[in-house]
Amino acid sequence: MIIVIQCIDQVGLVASISAILAAEQLNIISLREHVDQEDNRFFIRLEVTKVGDGAAIEKKLRNVLPQNATIIINPLPQKKVIVLVTKEYHCLADILVRNYFGTLGARVLGVIGNHVTLQNICERFDIPFFYISHEQLSKEQFEDKIISTIEQFEPDYIVLAKFMRILSPSLVGKFRGRIINIHHSFLPAFIGASPYKQAFERGVKLIGATAHFVSNELDQGPIIAQQIISVNHSFTAADMVKAGKEIETAVLARALKLVFEDRVFVYKNKTVVFE
Amino acid sequence: MIIVIQCIDQVGLVASISAILAAEQLNIISLREHVDQEDNRFFIRLEVTKVGDGAAIEKKLRNVLPQNATIIINPLPQKKVIVLVTKEYHCLADILVRNYFGTLGARVLGVIGNHVTLQNICERFDIPFFYISHEQLSKEQFEDKIISTIEQFEPDYIVLAKFMRILSPSLVGKFRGRIINIHHSFLPAFIGASPYKQAFERGVKLIGATAHFVSNELDQGPIIAQQIISVNHSFTAADMVKAGKEIETAVLARALKLVFEDRVFVYKNKTVVFE
Amino acid sequence: MIIVIQCIDQVGLVASISAILAAEQLNIISLREHVDQEDNRFFIRLEVTKVGDGAAIEKKLRNVLPQNATIIINPLPQKKVIVLVTKEYHCLADILVRNYFGTLGARVLGVIGNHVTLQNICERFDIPFFYISHEQLSKEQFEDKIISTIEQFEPDYIVLAKFMRILSPSLVGKFRGRIINIHHSFLPAFIGASPYKQAFERGVKLIGATAHFVSNELDQGPIIAQQIISVNHSFTAADMVKAGKEIETAVLARALKLVFEDRVFVYKNKTVVFE
Amino acid sequence: MIIVIQCIDQVGLVASISAILAAEQLNIISLREHVDQEDNRFFIRLEVTKVGDGAAIEKKLRNVLPQNATIIINPLPQKKVIVLVTKEYHCLADILVRNYFGTLGARVLGVIGNHVTLQNICERFDIPFFYISHEQLSKEQFEDKIISTIEQFEPDYIVLAKFMRILSPSLVGKFRGRIINIHHSFLPAFIGASPYKQAFERGVKLIGATAHFVSNELDQGPIIAQQIISVNHSFTAADMVKAGKEIETAVLARALKLVFEDRVFVYKNKTVVFE
Repeated sequence: MIIVIQCIDQVGLVASISAILAAEQLNIISLREHVDQEDNRFFIRLEVTKVGDGAAIEKKLRNVLPQNATIIINPLPQKKVIVLVTKEYHCLADILVRNYFGTLGARVLGVIGNHVTLQNICERFDIPFFYISHEQLSKEQFEDKIISTIEQFEPDYIVLAKFMRILSPSLVGKFRGRIINIHHSFLPAFIGASPYKQAFERGVKLIGATAHFVSNELDQGPIIAQQIISVNHSFTAADMVKAGKEIETAVLARALKLVFEDRVFVYKNKTVVFE
Repeated sequence: MIIVIQCIDQVGLVASISAILAAEQLNIISLREHVDQEDNRFFIRLEVTKVGDGAAIEKKLRNVLPQNATIIINPLPQKKVIVLVTKEYHCLADILVRNYFGTLGARVLGVIGNHVTLQNICERFDIPFFYISHEQLSKEQFEDKIISTIEQFEPDYIVLAKFMRILSPSLVGKFRGRIINIHHSFLPAFIGASPYKQAFERGVKLIGATAHFVSNELDQGPIIAQQIISVNHSFTAADMVKAGKEIETAVLARALKLVFEDRVFVYKNKTVVFE
Repeated sequence: MIIVIQCIDQVGLVASISAILAAEQLNIISLREHVDQEDNRFFIRLEVTKVGDGAAIEKKLRNVLPQNATIIINPLPQKKVIVLVTKEYHCLADILVRNYFGTLGARVLGVIGNHVTLQNICERFDIPFFYISHEQLSKEQFEDKIISTIEQFEPDYIVLAKFMRILSPSLVGKFRGRIINIHHSFLPAFIGASPYKQAFERGVKLIGATAHFVSNELDQGPIIAQQIISVNHSFTAADMVKAGKEIETAVLARALKLVFEDRVFVYKNKTVVFE
Repeated sequence: MIIVIQCIDQVGLVASISAILAAEQLNIISLREHVDQEDNRFFIRLEVTKVGDGAAIEKKLRNVLPQNATIIINPLPQKKVIVLVTKEYHCLADILVRNYFGTLGARVLGVIGNHVTLQNICERFDIPFFYISHEQLSKEQFEDKIISTIEQFEPDYIVLAKFMRILSPSLVGKFRGRIINIHHSFLPAFIGASPYKQAFERGVKLIGATAHFVSNELDQGPIIAQQIISVNHSFTAADMVKAGKEIETAVLARALKLVFEDRVFVYKNKTVVFE
């Protein structure tokens, strides 16, 4: 069983929490705790051997923790996920393969695409594909369709696997802290469009990718994971795009693993990640 | 204040330990705990904000912990170190520079060399250098001289910074768990002499270095840190040695940092490292 | 057009080769040359802008090069590949996805499995799957079936994507220099079976994977690419296997890219790789 | 002997160059050539076994190469270097150690500091230190002193090893393409002051460092090398600075090695690096 708590910090929190678990005869086999002293914020993630009575434990925890504590008790981690895509296949294919072989740590309920390009690969894996074109629709109409499609599945997370439309604050607000995006650069470098073209022109020797939660400010949400790959003068802008796809796939896979295992806390537009 | 404990595992250890700290009004700002379930072994490292009464806390901890617990309470981390060298400068120079600028996390009390090659660099940094040649001495006589030189300084750790003589079980036994070596390969590959020659002949694409505690079995002690560097066909065996020196320097520096910050636990010929 | 040559070294080879290309008005946009001086061996890879008359150029090159030069002129790189698998999906799925989207740099003609486990994923991608069980067959009978299946496709390369049977010298000899294997360790560490169990017991901090050409000595063939991934005390042997699969997939993908782009030369049980 | 050429591209350049070397009986043991097709620019680096008559070869090369070709023939690579520092020691100490042990690939003639902080470490290595304070001087006066100190040594390169003053276009112009800076971020992210504070506030998971040639636009010169290091939520801004120093030291060392071995070409505010 995994227990994850975020709240205001005070002396004695670890003692209070661990006393409750000890009373239940639950043995803590892995514990990571961190306090952001500047922000007076407490984060803890515990793995205990046995599966206890989650509801009872949560009630006891609420009695000792500061108000408004976030508590996640997670006996059977199996998150539900909707994936949004446009035309690029690399991140989606990786997710579909892991989902198919049961190693994603979550279940893909459906894929929404604003182009039909990736319908075929979804069908090969028996995953429902919803084609919602943005053409001839206002942004609001387009997003309403997306929202109603998402909502019928009640997913835990929405993964933007190279979805090339900017989401409105209204959609982001509906799924606050639950939308994960892969950005094709080492943020905050090369914010915005055509980062590989920018990287090529600047003559950089590394390119990167950033998985982050989506917030209302474009490319400014809390960063979950980042990785880089070396490039050199022999790379054209197109070669950089290709290399970038490899690293985008890898970094999104890693970020999803961390999120699905409840290792990521969000606060103050940052994350605490207990790897 | 940093508190580090290793003992047999049982339910309730985190609760007992954290209750003692809470009673002292000590706030835990960083905590990492790990249980080796196979071995029923408990490891914890805590950082608390204030410096409490170490002796009193240790006494209280002994009352609640299983017998034979290892407890390190470390209000002012300033380890004392003796370095053993032969002729190669790269690891020693890095240690001397960090020591000189106060960023080593330890204090170098002296350097023992079985050649005079590195006497000059030590003198430039005002570090006593002890020349103890192995020539015309039996291994026992040679090591007796080393031991008596080491013992007059009562160091916490002995660092083999490219010391090219194999230590006898008797010397290792005298400083058990306190001798750190840098091995010029990605152990367990290329155990023994001339690892770069072996690596060159095998045509490997990566070479590595391993920092480990010294045990009685050659190159078999608990591993603290390992890193690698890419090589290719254009590297001669000599180029591999050069590249290896860079990575040896880096990995020894990292291992020493971890050890000096009390982040490394040794057990069962392995380490738990709370980075 | 890509031109790749390996031969005995002598003064003037670059001059002779480039004079032929200049006479054809072919502009060299990328050239890498390397001489193994110890072995007196010459390696060159050239990319020229236009597609010239390959047969004519090869003839002219033969006139100026030492005897027995290997010359590959490769106007349209599209290698043909057969993949051998057992039960593990990760490398195969990556290959199938890249093949499906046309980014593998080769065409997968079929997959041979000694278990049926991976038949379904092959069928989802319309790739013929040949189930050849090793049970109730002698090694020779088993391999004869494999050989005859392979030969009907005349592939350029055979990829062992986690094929867990050791090939006999006779099979290896039939496809000399054309069989690529992914080995689940940082060779030469942990040769043989259960490398992750060995790595776990040794307490290593890095695990690796090695893509290599298959030779008659087990795990001793020329290394194409190697990569590593960090692990720590919190990894069980099973976690190491999982982490290992990620790195196996990545390193095999990279090795295949290098081979399919004619960037890898084999000689003396080593490789020259012009990345 | 190393020969390095940059010029306008045309068909037949490799043939012309290599014919001259073959006529001199010089065997090419390593050759890398690259054409920037967009820019119609040719780059080549050759290593030949014997040391030929450099002046004669250069004359013959000029006869066959396009006008204004840059030709460097470099029989005995021993660059001369002046280092500029402020207060931070890490890059300077690394350079001094390598210089002392003869592995820098260049000779440090002197160090200029606008603070006296690093005078002592220079003296320990018998390197002349010139204290030139910027206080009570106009920028022009300050730089005039720096220029006249530099000029008396006629160095090949000027290394800014954490020199915290911005150089004027006039000084940069005097040593165009010969000033190397280490920037404390993964450019172009976090341009300008306090990059670690910016990185901390953005919650990035990687921090980097960039070695580049200095041009008139701040932090915009041609990039030579970049590297990154992982950070996480447990890093304070001060911890990021510490981690950054490690990577700054490493990346500057690597960039200097590349430059001193004549592996770096500059053009169009970019570099071609033949590693």
